[in-house]
Amino acid sequence: MRQTENKDGAPRGARYYPFPRVLDVLLRGAGQVMFQNSPWTGLLFLLGIAWGSWQADRPEIITGALTGLCTGTLAACLLHAPREEIDAGLHGYNGILVGCALPVFFGSGPLCWALVFAGAFFSTVIMMAVSVFLRSWKVSAMTGPFVFTTWFILLSSYGFSHISIAALPSPALPSQISGAMAMVPGPEALLKASLAGISQVFLIDNAVTGVIFLAGIAASSLPAALLGWAGSVLAMATALFLGADGRSVEEGLYQFSAVLTAIGLGSTFYSPGWRVMLYAFLGTVFTVVAQGALNAALSPLGIPTLTFPFVIAAWLFLLPHIRFEQKGSGGSPSA
Amino acid sequence: MRQTENKDGAPRGARYYPFPRVLDVLLRGAGQVMFQNSPWTGLLFLLGIAWGSWQADRPEIITGALTGLCTGTLAACLLHAPREEIDAGLHGYNGILVGCALPVFFGSGPLCWALVFAGAFFSTVIMMAVSVFLRSWKVSAMTGPFVFTTWFILLSSYGFSHISIAALPSPALPSQISGAMAMVPGPEALLKASLAGISQVFLIDNAVTGVIFLAGIAASSLPAALLGWAGSVLAMATALFLGADGRSVEEGLYQFSAVLTAIGLGSTFYSPGWRVMLYAFLGTVFTVVAQGALNAALSPLGIPTLTFPFVIAAWLFLLPHIRFEQKGSGGSPSA
Amino acid sequence: MRQTENKDGAPRGARYYPFPRVLDVLLRGAGQVMFQNSPWTGLLFLLGIAWGSWQADRPEIITGALTGLCTGTLAACLLHAPREEIDAGLHGYNGILVGCALPVFFGSGPLCWALVFAGAFFSTVIMMAVSVFLRSWKVSAMTGPFVFTTWFILLSSYGFSHISIAALPSPALPSQISGAMAMVPGPEALLKASLAGISQVFLIDNAVTGVIFLAGIAASSLPAALLGWAGSVLAMATALFLGADGRSVEEGLYQFSAVLTAIGLGSTFYSPGWRVMLYAFLGTVFTVVAQGALNAALSPLGIPTLTFPFVIAAWLFLLPHIRFEQKGSGGSPSA
Repeated sequence: MRQTENKDGAPRGARYYPFPRVLDVLLRGAGQVMFQNSPWTGLLFLLGIAWGSWQADRPEIITGALTGLCTGTLAACLLHAPREEIDAGLHGYNGILVGCALPVFFGSGPLCWALVFAGAFFSTVIMMAVSVFLRSWKVSAMTGPFVFTTWFILLSSYGFSHISIAALPSPALPSQISGAMAMVPGPEALLKASLAGISQVFLIDNAVTGVIFLAGIAASSLPAALLGWAGSVLAMATALFLGADGRSVEEGLYQFSAVLTAIGLGSTFYSPGWRVMLYAFLGTVFTVVAQGALNAALSPLGIPTLTFPFVIAAWLFLLPHIRFEQKGSGGSPSA
Repeated sequence: MRQTENKDGAPRGARYYPFPRVLDVLLRGAGQVMFQNSPWTGLLFLLGIAWGSWQADRPEIITGALTGLCTGTLAACLLHAPREEIDAGLHGYNGILVGCALPVFFGSGPLCWALVFAGAFFSTVIMMAVSVFLRSWKVSAMTGPFVFTTWFILLSSYGFSHISIAALPSPALPSQISGAMAMVPGPEALLKASLAGISQVFLIDNAVTGVIFLAGIAASSLPAALLGWAGSVLAMATALFLGADGRSVEEGLYQFSAVLTAIGLGSTFYSPGWRVMLYAFLGTVFTVVAQGALNAALSPLGIPTLTFPFVIAAWLFLLPHIRFEQKGSGGSPSA
Repeated sequence: MRQTENKDGAPRGARYYPFPRVLDVLLRGAGQVMFQNSPWTGLLFLLGIAWGSWQADRPEIITGALTGLCTGTLAACLLHAPREEIDAGLHGYNGILVGCALPVFFGSGPLCWALVFAGAFFSTVIMMAVSVFLRSWKVSAMTGPFVFTTWFILLSSYGFSHISIAALPSPALPSQISGAMAMVPGPEALLKASLAGISQVFLIDNAVTGVIFLAGIAASSLPAALLGWAGSVLAMATALFLGADGRSVEEGLYQFSAVLTAIGLGSTFYSPGWRVMLYAFLGTVFTVVAQGALNAALSPLGIPTLTFPFVIAAWLFLLPHIRFEQKGSGGSPSA
């Protein structure tokens, strides 16, 4: 985890903060979605979400993001989560994702807002639970708490008629896609797709948002930004090579989990190097396979994979604790 | 865990038992389904099951309960489970539930009885396995072993033609229930439903049985009984607020897992207090969401959720080990 | 784990090897599929696969087996897996199974071979991950890494049109098989079925291969070979008693996981004895129930159970660490 904010070497109490304390914590929460413990990253992420939200004429997405971010962080305070975790934004990133996801799938009825509050709260409980569960393996919860919370709420909507479903996939038995769907987009579409792969981490399909997100990551770590984009391109190539649905690739749906895997394995949990990069790219390829697999596995239930392909790839590729000159991933409380 | 039976402060060998030893252990096994280490609770639970079984003209349910209770406890002795766990009834509560569930879904053919024996035995193996698995997190197995065993046996019935399926839901892809089904029952029906929510813990839909069960819990702990009923009412309110199927609410199907969550979080694993109560009620609301989610998730497989919504809620809400003045949940070997 | 190869009591560096070092490691990898740390077992296993592959006119199966075996083992070297694990063949058995399975389900197109390479590599990463995960419970990964890897790749084929699916079951909601399908095969067919149950561990339906495999196990441990066959017979009897599909029994599909359970519980992880044998046979019966259950559970996804019924049975029946005069299962790095 980057600690460059503490440039002046001052003691902890006197740590330099460019933003008021509460704002700083919230912004870091946004930044941690892509493992960056930096308020600047978070600020640019919120800007990117706002842009995508505005362009799609769906103000409920940025509103949901802010609501979820605040609720998740507040819940951690109420539940006495460790102070240093809260300060690093580790109890905000699941909440903000819940807050982006629910309005995407449910629209913006009053019940949706109740669910955003409840979901962001639950995501913090689950974050604390998963973190305790994983502690002895020195592996962090990733975006698992967001995924589990959102899956529960999305699935429950089938049983609760007052929840209006806006955009869930219809439950269907899996069947192989036809070769005709596996078209390869043109160069410009591919460029856009590589950026949409970044923006889809927050469930937004918008190339400009992708650029703003990359700028946000670069504000904290240039290598991470490059890895993120490279991960998106590699995922795209893998998916097209295997014959994935061209439209899904254009919308970034085979890339967003892979982006997280590439950044996470390549720069956050291991210290960068060419062996680590190779391993991170293997993990990225695995993430694409896992994306295809989870698409099929969840198809009968009519719910999306969210970032679970990344979560499973990260857990499987981090658990072995392979010694390339491994950074201490134990204490590093990243997403 | 209540230890009030040991009133005389006599050494362990001389502990006071109102019932012959074997009977005491078995009755505690029944009581532990709702976390009460008391033979009186168990006695009233068996009475309640017998009443419900008689009223529904299904003697196989109480017979199955007794068979499962004895088999599960005996298995623990044969497999050298720790003596103090057996004495506290911790190897009976999964067996009794398996013994209630299988006749409900399979009727009472001879093969069903073979499966009750095998299932209760397996539930003890799985109890020991899950307990070892969870040991380092100081979280107990809850009714997980019952759920896993019963799921395995119910699912296997699709492949084995000699098992006669009496009452499994038809496998179907999930679809949202219509608003018309979300009717709110009248006041009397609601009262009944709040009690059916208690009785359904043992898969029985009978308000009188619910009252007997409440009396059973109260015999060991009045707060636990109140929490159980409050949990049922809160679950009912949550489900109706979200627009759940009114008939399912009337039958107690959205309440029984929530009852266990309310008792477990509110009085067994944390020491009672208003913060704990609030947390328990949040867990109860989560259980209702999980109930809706698992209904949908299991719908393609044609099996019921059993008490898994409670199990998942309990694990997630206990793992964080939040310090409200937390009772030592480590050594407390409760359901 | 047998160490009889080290007969001369020479120091480790001078250990006696009947085969060149690399070949020895690879052959042990094949043998570890059925828990035998012996190159002779591995040699006979490869012979059995070659025979079955030739008889079915599917050379891609033995080719896949060899490719997967080498790739998996090589991956372990590249990823710095512990040397003694590699030497015992523990990073070959998942790879060889992946290499057998993918050509069975995908045929032998060029993409299939890319997937065999990738799959065997991933299976080693997952092996290392699962082993780390399970370390504190002193339970080994079994064939879990093979199962997870193959499930991911098989499932992903629904989303990738360039993968040609040769033989996956059609996704379908489960429904109980008719009584007419539960026919009991004649004595000769039963004998063949008991051997096909052995050969199906490597996804081959061939009685002669089954005999060669038994000979291979016997070359390392006669009790293990007898337990394996007994497990197959017991599984067959259980499945027919419960009314399973007669054709599936003839093809060995209810037996192969049970064979592994019987050998694993009966001779590898516990030291043999009559109590252990009883426990192993209970585990074998449970495996058959789990086979039926997982058939139904995976039916909507259109993927086979592979050896997961064994994996789940082994984990559940080993976790309790029951003391019959238990062999130290901790250090024993078996399949």
